[in-house]
Amino acid sequence: LPSKLPAGKTSIFSVMSGLARKHDAIDLSQGFPNFETDNHLKELVCKAMKEGYNQYPPMNGIPELREQIVSKIENLYGKKYDEASEIIFTAGATQALYCAINAFVHPGDEVIVFKPAYDSYEPDIKLAGGKPVLIELKGRDFKIDWEEVEEKITSKTRMIVINTPHNPTGTVLSKSDMQRLEKLLKNTNIILLSDEVYEHLIFDKEEHQSASKFPGLAERAIVCASFGKTFHNTGWKMGYCVAPEVLMKEIIKFHQATVFCVNHPMQRAFAEYLKNPDHYLSLGDFYQQKRDKFLELMEGSKFKGTPSKGTYFQVMDYSEITDEHDVDFAKRLITKHGLASIPVSVFHKDGKDHKQLRFCFAKNDETLEKATEILHKL
Amino acid sequence: LPSKLPAGKTSIFSVMSGLARKHDAIDLSQGFPNFETDNHLKELVCKAMKEGYNQYPPMNGIPELREQIVSKIENLYGKKYDEASEIIFTAGATQALYCAINAFVHPGDEVIVFKPAYDSYEPDIKLAGGKPVLIELKGRDFKIDWEEVEEKITSKTRMIVINTPHNPTGTVLSKSDMQRLEKLLKNTNIILLSDEVYEHLIFDKEEHQSASKFPGLAERAIVCASFGKTFHNTGWKMGYCVAPEVLMKEIIKFHQATVFCVNHPMQRAFAEYLKNPDHYLSLGDFYQQKRDKFLELMEGSKFKGTPSKGTYFQVMDYSEITDEHDVDFAKRLITKHGLASIPVSVFHKDGKDHKQLRFCFAKNDETLEKATEILHKL
Ligand SMILES: CSCCC(=O)C(=O)O
Ligand SMILES: CSCCC(=O)C(=O)O
Repeated sequence: LPSKLPAGKTSIFSVMSGLARKHDAIDLSQGFPNFETDNHLKELVCKAMKEGYNQYPPMNGIPELREQIVSKIENLYGKKYDEASEIIFTAGATQALYCAINAFVHPGDEVIVFKPAYDSYEPDIKLAGGKPVLIELKGRDFKIDWEEVEEKITSKTRMIVINTPHNPTGTVLSKSDMQRLEKLLKNTNIILLSDEVYEHLIFDKEEHQSASKFPGLAERAIVCASFGKTFHNTGWKMGYCVAPEVLMKEIIKFHQATVFCVNHPMQRAFAEYLKNPDHYLSLGDFYQQKRDKFLELMEGSKFKGTPSKGTYFQVMDYSEITDEHDVDFAKRLITKHGLASIPVSVFHKDGKDHKQLRFCFAKNDETLEKATEILHKL
Repeated sequence: LPSKLPAGKTSIFSVMSGLARKHDAIDLSQGFPNFETDNHLKELVCKAMKEGYNQYPPMNGIPELREQIVSKIENLYGKKYDEASEIIFTAGATQALYCAINAFVHPGDEVIVFKPAYDSYEPDIKLAGGKPVLIELKGRDFKIDWEEVEEKITSKTRMIVINTPHNPTGTVLSKSDMQRLEKLLKNTNIILLSDEVYEHLIFDKEEHQSASKFPGLAERAIVCASFGKTFHNTGWKMGYCVAPEVLMKEIIKFHQATVFCVNHPMQRAFAEYLKNPDHYLSLGDFYQQKRDKFLELMEGSKFKGTPSKGTYFQVMDYSEITDEHDVDFAKRLITKHGLASIPVSVFHKDGKDHKQLRFCFAKNDETLEKATEILHKL
């Protein structure tokens, strides 16, 4: 049997979470919180089920939720999408990314991806027959070298993937980054895929620079977002994407084919819950406290890292402790010490080891205390 | 922008359901019930949310549900799948069909599809770069002409898609059909995709002939199933597929890429609910009564049809009423008479009009009475 993705393997998130479960380890690996989503939101799901919203919703989502999101985006980023033709809800942002890439990347097309990168972009590109063109982020603060991007753009470049706040590094793109990109893409047909699942998890009074905010980007951008990351329910598998109608028309063909529509009672619940913007506007402060708590607890340990500026991840260098490969070290940390993390090499080009681990700090204080106690002993 | 699916358009189910909503019509179009899923099942979802099952489940599903389904299949069809490596849960059977087709169909490969057919197989095949090879079902009882199948198999045939009970015709494959197929596929590498989403909706004491029951088929089959169709909650978007490990390994690459995993609290709820087999074993009788009720109510009208043997659909000929194209007639039925159905031409090769409409009889008695009253006046 010829394989469409010969090198495709079980994602590191499955491997590490599985190992964590097996060894009953404290789990700072896969990106999800260990505290609860709002009871009120759960009750809204129960209410929607009770009221009978249990059959197929419209393929592109219920109008109430489409309207909510479209006005949220307008309020936050000043861009008005058409609720009828420029938004769909998806089975997690994962499905949005898949559909966006597969709708536009044809065999032979090039797609620029910045490394380190979340591990689903490259398989998606390869499944579409495209060629990932990898560009390393530069320096300790993982900056994009725009001159290199300019050099790497060819007549085959179909798409550029950006991700801000950035998984795994916790960096964010600045306004001038976005303006530079806007200039670069002007008069091209290059599509921008902007993974903004951590849009509300941004710290130190930074402002999220959504692609939607920049007209020269918004006109060519597919912006992907996640309810799971924002509302502490990654297991509900709900996300969305917005894009100009001319792009959305093609994405919808893949949406229809891959899932057709997504969970109806949960759409109802979010439509109600989102009426109160506090539910997402308070999130940056909330997670900033978690980050600060985690870094404070790590002080004096042999792990070193630049404070994360967004996401719920903190990357740390462990080279003072061991020169083991990060995958080996991460596995040993689980099996011998009962703590799970993600080896950063899996996000890097050719799996290059930088002696770094990624810790998810979306955990309650007790867990962060126990976890850092373990890390101090190393 | 070059399109991956230039002819791709909004599915007939969206069109007709949308029109039905707009005109507040009685909706016998898209396949979903208008009565409620079990309150107990809803409560199990609420319980799972309350107990904290709101983060990522394992990529291939929670073990409790995998075990339930694997033993259900063993009990019903005598085939034991490995719960660790031969089953995944999907965002509806739609996602299972997409992943199965895209995992194995390479550009230029041929896939045999029997017409009329559910409208997602052909776009899935085309998106994979494959060529649908269409074979008409024969006669009033829509039989497969196995000699024609034998003739149409070439060295490029990668896959055959079957669907029993069959949407839209309501026919079922017999044991001898399956044995004939088994013989035909022996010593080939052809993969069988068996869409069995209506497995429990089978009437008149017929036995469902799952591909899982026939060793020569099971060894090469991907069997797709639906919780939505079985438990009256199509809007929860939950399904699954089973396949031998050698096939599942490749399907999982697409599963991981398209959605990664599916709704956690709903998996918990089904794992509990499925402990009582009555919940699905009683379904054939339940829907047989609906079919009988609908046909009884239709007696004396100008619509004619052979009783459905499975699914919750009844196809009926309207040629005594008008010679309008079925799409026009179906639209006029909504806008002028307040009743929605599906024009069968959309399932046929080249959209050929057979002067037939498909009615979904998964409705309460009151709705069936009101609907048939309208149909009697035509
Ligand atoms: C879909 S599993 C990956 C979760 C995640 O976003 C991460 O851990 O990086
Ligand atoms: C996913 S919408 C189609 C529902 C269905 O199975 C049908 O109406 O045939």
